[in-house]
Amino acid sequence: MSILCVGSVALDSVETPFGKADRVLGGSAVFFSAAATFFDPVQIVGVVGDDYPFDDLDFLKGRGADLSGIERRKGESFFWAGRYHYDLNSRDTLETRLGVFASFEPKIPEAFRSARYVFLGNIDPTLQHQVLDQVEAPEVVACDTMNYWIEGNRKELVSLLERVRILMVNDAEARQLADEPNLLKASRWIRERGPEIVVVKKGEHGAILFADGWAFFAPGYPLEVVFDPTGAGDAFAGGFMGYLASTGSLAPEDLRRAMVYGSTMGSFAVEDFSIDRFRALDAEEVARRVEEFREMTAFRTREEVARRA
Amino acid sequence: MSILCVGSVALDSVETPFGKADRVLGGSAVFFSAAATFFDPVQIVGVVGDDYPFDDLDFLKGRGADLSGIERRKGESFFWAGRYHYDLNSRDTLETRLGVFASFEPKIPEAFRSARYVFLGNIDPTLQHQVLDQVEAPEVVACDTMNYWIEGNRKELVSLLERVRILMVNDAEARQLADEPNLLKASRWIRERGPEIVVVKKGEHGAILFADGWAFFAPGYPLEVVFDPTGAGDAFAGGFMGYLASTGSLAPEDLRRAMVYGSTMGSFAVEDFSIDRFRALDAEEVARRVEEFREMTAFRTREEVARRA
Repeated sequence: MSILCVGSVALDSVETPFGKADRVLGGSAVFFSAAATFFDPVQIVGVVGDDYPFDDLDFLKGRGADLSGIERRKGESFFWAGRYHYDLNSRDTLETRLGVFASFEPKIPEAFRSARYVFLGNIDPTLQHQVLDQVEAPEVVACDTMNYWIEGNRKELVSLLERVRILMVNDAEARQLADEPNLLKASRWIRERGPEIVVVKKGEHGAILFADGWAFFAPGYPLEVVFDPTGAGDAFAGGFMGYLASTGSLAPEDLRRAMVYGSTMGSFAVEDFSIDRFRALDAEEVARRVEEFREMTAFRTREEVARRA
Repeated sequence: MSILCVGSVALDSVETPFGKADRVLGGSAVFFSAAATFFDPVQIVGVVGDDYPFDDLDFLKGRGADLSGIERRKGESFFWAGRYHYDLNSRDTLETRLGVFASFEPKIPEAFRSARYVFLGNIDPTLQHQVLDQVEAPEVVACDTMNYWIEGNRKELVSLLERVRILMVNDAEARQLADEPNLLKASRWIRERGPEIVVVKKGEHGAILFADGWAFFAPGYPLEVVFDPTGAGDAFAGGFMGYLASTGSLAPEDLRRAMVYGSTMGSFAVEDFSIDRFRALDAEEVARRVEEFREMTAFRTREEVARRA
């Protein structure tokens, strides 16, 4: 089934130790969709200005993304410019211009309102509420957020949690939201406010899923060259939700696989600028990397070895 | 077979958000042995002053540690005092007094010289060389080090690598040693200088083993309460080496299990002050936590599910 994805559709100018990319496709909805469409169609809702190279999104369309919910307005598109440091773990934001995104009010097209899977990208929690108000009977709602909203619109964010089944945040955000440095306690605090599942993304250190009485850990894929880290978290979310939507299940064994598909798609995202790595990516490469994840984590206990001996 | 372990035998005074411990058993050789003796006997070589509560080490003796290589000298024992911050990921060193450890010159007792497994705790690389000079035919030498030696005695450390099969360091140390921010490249740089295996410890983020053409990742065990992080890395090394010595093998499947036993023992170490958590720990608890590690990381690919359907 399709996933409704509401988030930013942006232009990024990025400098890394390996090169520069100028005004390339970016934004949470774009990275999410580039990854998720490997598994399931995506309906995108967002806004761009009249400077947006809309035809460049044709790649996503060819993959099964429905772009009819992207509003095209007079004015400038959301623009972000950043520079990554030598170790790629830190970056400076050089410029942020919200443009038409500043007054974004998501309008969900009629055809998208029956969506059962919804991904609320990192936008104002008040708008995330408005999205859910327009969806008839969402079954699986996943949501991202950031420090800006945790500080600036905490009340709406906490009330939104009641409508969300999967919260996907990074470790600093989980700690800040729960005001608790211990991740296990922080995730319990969050889960007590609504989400059954909390996925904590930790960049190169992987990601951990906390559910009722169990947890699952997917490592970060060790890469020789992290070309451009932009969008890795959104690509993770895309792989995770895309896989889940393709199964229609939230069974633990599907959630585990979703974590691995998330980490896999996140690892591809950072191998090139923008969503470029996804252009030539095929199912076999994805399957091969998933297999590598398994080889990187699978073991038998000595009790098992003894039993089978 | 026994493991020869050379390292510090110290007294620690520790403050954490949960309490205080004054002049309790510490040092790399003590944490290593508390964990390793779960799997295999350990022969400890170190030095203490005449202020050391030597009888407190009886616990290790009862577990199979041979303390006859611990020299007892006039003077003060190695003493470290530290305070952990609220989030337990950072700490201030309040005091370090090397005492008799400052002039430590490891003398390997005759009975220990036939050791086949050797763990060189974090001491001056010149002394680590001297240890190996005294061991007849070591088969598996593992080694730890720190920023102090990477900066201060780099030449000896790099030459030591030729005599080491397993280097165990944290991520910052691996990057510093190789002068390379990318961990995969850093570990290759290290492996090109001797060690077949590099184990990179990342604290709460787990640990990753790099070998020839493959890698294995063990997550950190998510704990509600990290009571005192002191010694976690040494307990990891103890679990890792203890398990390997008990098998006599460096086969990939044993190395994988060793990583999990390492992470398991590291996770127990932080549940109490000093080596106290190991006092009441039994084999069943260890096996249960290893099983939890497996549940936290095991998954089947969708291709496998499809094949079996």
